[in-house]
Amino acid sequence: MFSTIKTVKVYEEVILQIKGMVNSGKLKKGDKLISERELSNQLGVSRTSVREALRGLEVIGLIDCKQGEGNFIKKDFESNFFEPLSIMFTLNKSSTEEILELRRVIEVETVALAAKNITNEELIELKNLMDEMKRNKDEELKGNLDKKFHYKIAQASRNNLIVTVLDVISSLIDSFIKDARADILKKENDEEIIHYHHECIYNALIKGDAEEAASIMRMHMKLISQNILK
Amino acid sequence: MFSTIKTVKVYEEVILQIKGMVNSGKLKKGDKLISERELSNQLGVSRTSVREALRGLEVIGLIDCKQGEGNFIKKDFESNFFEPLSIMFTLNKSSTEEILELRRVIEVETVALAAKNITNEELIELKNLMDEMKRNKDEELKGNLDKKFHYKIAQASRNNLIVTVLDVISSLIDSFIKDARADILKKENDEEIIHYHHECIYNALIKGDAEEAASIMRMHMKLISQNILK
Repeated sequence: MFSTIKTVKVYEEVILQIKGMVNSGKLKKGDKLISERELSNQLGVSRTSVREALRGLEVIGLIDCKQGEGNFIKKDFESNFFEPLSIMFTLNKSSTEEILELRRVIEVETVALAAKNITNEELIELKNLMDEMKRNKDEELKGNLDKKFHYKIAQASRNNLIVTVLDVISSLIDSFIKDARADILKKENDEEIIHYHHECIYNALIKGDAEEAASIMRMHMKLISQNILK
Repeated sequence: MFSTIKTVKVYEEVILQIKGMVNSGKLKKGDKLISERELSNQLGVSRTSVREALRGLEVIGLIDCKQGEGNFIKKDFESNFFEPLSIMFTLNKSSTEEILELRRVIEVETVALAAKNITNEELIELKNLMDEMKRNKDEELKGNLDKKFHYKIAQASRNNLIVTVLDVISSLIDSFIKDARADILKKENDEEIIHYHHECIYNALIKGDAEEAASIMRMHMKLISQNILK
């Protein structure tokens, strides 16, 4: 039997070559690409194909096309990681339960890692965030402090891949669950429970007790999901 | 103080409109887009801008441009989710430890979910996969069966977002850790230990014991990471 011959479009070839240079380390974050004309000459393809390839790379967030300055390998590629997950989420008609569950799945084990790797400076920062959260009355500000608290714990896991994935999940929650935090605080005394959970997590981190940290985080995530979903 | 005025490029506007139609549900998986000429008329922009937008959407994997047939909303968007994570991984010089750790973090809690949600049919399929793995001598085939075993457990979690994320991580492992499975089996009796772990996971799933399943999976992932990283 014959097997299908895969035809690669010219612009795809250009993309492959540029990605190849990123993979091999020849192109690094912030590096400027050679001009469209030079690319077209060196690769022996039309300017149109080069431009199509650059547009494609801009859309996936690998390069930044600055008018009049040229094309650069992006420095903050992470932010663009959100896009495909977000589209997939919509196309698959995923439920909010699924996002919240994925968040729980990752955060429970992440706080266990943090218990082993957190620094004293990070512990002090967590304490400051908790104090600020208690002092503040503004809901939006408190929401941001809450996010920072969880972000700091993710960083303390010393795994950047985990930080990125949790960051994307947080963006997903923000864009698909409107007023998530308002929902969380529907019941009067839930705010106190959340503060209490944060303090227990903090204490487990100080002790370096991975199991305790994980089990409180599991409880914390359960409360949050219940309030958002009910 | 003035705030920066964000200029949106014409092709980006076109992308936003098409994405908007996907988000609102007007365009679904498999749907055919109107022709380039019609898009250019309806949006009041040049054919070049339309073509740049379509290239961009093709690169992020939202649409499939079939020569002579037209442009379609992609059915298997998930596969393209791998691309940005892979690029991010390279640009950030992430370590293989980080991928393996992320895999462990997710699989440990996923098997706990599976213990609560797995069906009898899925349990039979897991049993068959284990039997096949034992019978087979071919390393590549055994590797594939092993992957299917873990994939089946992910599906049994009843969370598609988790299935997708684990699938991407599995692709990352395949492309960044050469011969991962060969490394795992460096020691003679490790294959037996892996079979034994699989059986223990399977037994915990039959009992519906989430905690036991999670703790064996943690052990299993630890063995795998140690063998790959040493």
